Amino acid sequence: MNMWKIGCVGFGNVGQGLARILVDKREALKERYGFEYSVTFIAAPVKGSLFNPNGIDLASALAVLDKTGSLKGHPDATEKDTLSLISGNYADIITEATYTDLKTGEPGVTHIRTALDRGIHVVSTNKGPVSIALPELMELAEKNGVSYFFEGVVMSGTPTMNLAREALAGCDITGAMGIVNGTTNYILTRMEEGMPYGEALKKAQELGYAEADPTGDVEGWDAAVKVQVLAKVLMGEPIRVEDVDRTGITGITSGDIEAAAKRGARIKLIAEVRRENGILVAKVAPKEIPLTHPLAGIMNATNAITLVTDHLGEVTIVGPGAGRVETGQALLADLLSVHRSHS
Amino acid sequence: MNMWKIGCVGFGNVGQGLARILVDKREALKERYGFEYSVTFIAAPVKGSLFNPNGIDLASALAVLDKTGSLKGHPDATEKDTLSLISGNYADIITEATYTDLKTGEPGVTHIRTALDRGIHVVSTNKGPVSIALPELMELAEKNGVSYFFEGVVMSGTPTMNLAREALAGCDITGAMGIVNGTTNYILTRMEEGMPYGEALKKAQELGYAEADPTGDVEGWDAAVKVQVLAKVLMGEPIRVEDVDRTGITGITSGDIEAAAKRGARIKLIAEVRRENGILVAKVAPKEIPLTHPLAGIMNATNAITLVTDHLGEVTIVGPGAGRVETGQALLADLLSVHRSHS
Repeated sequence: MNMWKIGCVGFGNVGQGLARILVDKREALKERYGFEYSVTFIAAPVKGSLFNPNGIDLASALAVLDKTGSLKGHPDATEKDTLSLISGNYADIITEATYTDLKTGEPGVTHIRTALDRGIHVVSTNKGPVSIALPELMELAEKNGVSYFFEGVVMSGTPTMNLAREALAGCDITGAMGIVNGTTNYILTRMEEGMPYGEALKKAQELGYAEADPTGDVEGWDAAVKVQVLAKVLMGEPIRVEDVDRTGITGITSGDIEAAAKRGARIKLIAEVRRENGILVAKVAPKEIPLTHPLAGIMNATNAITLVTDHLGEVTIVGPGAGRVETGQALLADLLSVHRSHS
Repeated sequence: MNMWKIGCVGFGNVGQGLARILVDKREALKERYGFEYSVTFIAAPVKGSLFNPNGIDLASALAVLDKTGSLKGHPDATEKDTLSLISGNYADIITEATYTDLKTGEPGVTHIRTALDRGIHVVSTNKGPVSIALPELMELAEKNGVSYFFEGVVMSGTPTMNLAREALAGCDITGAMGIVNGTTNYILTRMEEGMPYGEALKKAQELGYAEADPTGDVEGWDAAVKVQVLAKVLMGEPIRVEDVDRTGITGITSGDIEAAAKRGARIKLIAEVRRENGILVAKVAPKEIPLTHPLAGIMNATNAITLVTDHLGEVTIVGPGAGRVETGQALLADLLSVHRSHS
């Protein structure tokens, strides 16, 4: 297929980031990849949903949203609800970027299940569904002969799963370890400069890296979800987030950081999957990384993952782990991956 | 296509590395990627060429070679010459891994041109043809609707071009800078530990990193060829190796390295392409890299490239830059890339 009908489910920062890229790069995507698209709906109950089987003018949708803070004044405004839009066969692919609920996975799980059930490809950046229902959703995609890609859940647009699947194709991945939470890495970087934990956390909150309740980041829950994804996708082992052996950074003191420095190392919050005597180790914990290892040099909110492979030994990729355009890029890379596999 | 007929041209370290992988992973490649193969010829005039339209038993070829140092005693031994094998329509794809001649590009250029002319895909790790004839060969491939991939010429199996083409699809690459020569990085690492240049070079030669005549590495010629490739593939600009502004590491002293360290930096031999006011900058030179940059931490013979992108800012990939299995992996990744694009 060269003309893809896309349905955008969720139109917050990430959805808008993707929409902006799609508008700006329409010609380049056609020329370089033979990828053409028509966005037939935007499902966003609060901001206002749009529907036009002949294709929504994305530039005008972004303009109306910028001007009024809502899509409700756009000529393509619709009363149809999200599930009717997904199940109405108006799209070949949906982009799922609604809000993350790590307890229930909803509304993402229902959106994705509905689409896959109907033979619609899904690309998503939503961590809720991968944490709650990844094995089920991957199986459903396979059963229906469609793709379900979710590159953005690990390091936004910095590729991990696409890297393993394509550029490193042919290698066996025997493990992975990485810095996959920018907030905690930012805090550890400030602490290394001498700032106490409390002050570094406050600074991270001021910059918008950490939430008012920072538990998800500093106790390692966010990193644990990423370990869950890596365990399933890279190692083929489905686990629950509760199965991840998880320690956050709240116990780390300036003294620990100084002691590590004296040993030629830095303390990093490391997310890790590997097999030890055939048993899967799935872990998030602060770890001393020797300065000679590429992960030791990853500072501030930057992310990085080291993949351990049979043919190449360690391969490390370093890049941003969050951001509107960065996460939009993850959706775009996944869209182009679907395009390569199914056109 | 799911059953690929492969012709191996050149059967030195790299060709054997690939053959070993193909033997070991036959089932995994079929299962994971739907990739099946039959090697119909091995063109290696000195070691002895093999030909069998029904498929050579690679394991037995490797065994005979290990035992006798030659392929001439194998039941599939043939008198056919290399060009007859390539042009005889016995393969859908050839792997070109003969020796590198940076002056003439031969015999690789003729092998690759012959294959592409006949609509045969080419995957290659040979730096000669990319330095001498890359624009012509890429055009020829396009004209004939086939692929010509050469991931291995930059950092062996550590992906650069496949990364840009697939996992980072949708991004514009606006520049690249990297450590793409392991020998010089090894020498600089030893010098940082206090070893004088001459001694570090001797050590690199003992370890087999540097040739008896080290000019190609230490004067930056090897890195310059990689800049040429990056300029054409990432930036779309064909240049000659002479166009690369090239300075090697022979002028670097221990004093320079210490002075850099005092400024919080390391000296690395950096290969670089970018645009400055619309003009392509293509350069190899020693450069002070601040310790906060991922390239500063790359030690010994490890390689790394930072791609500068519009959507993600800097993305850096770190991995091995040489080796028998590592370069064999580059050929395998390219084979699977051809498989994805043409099956």
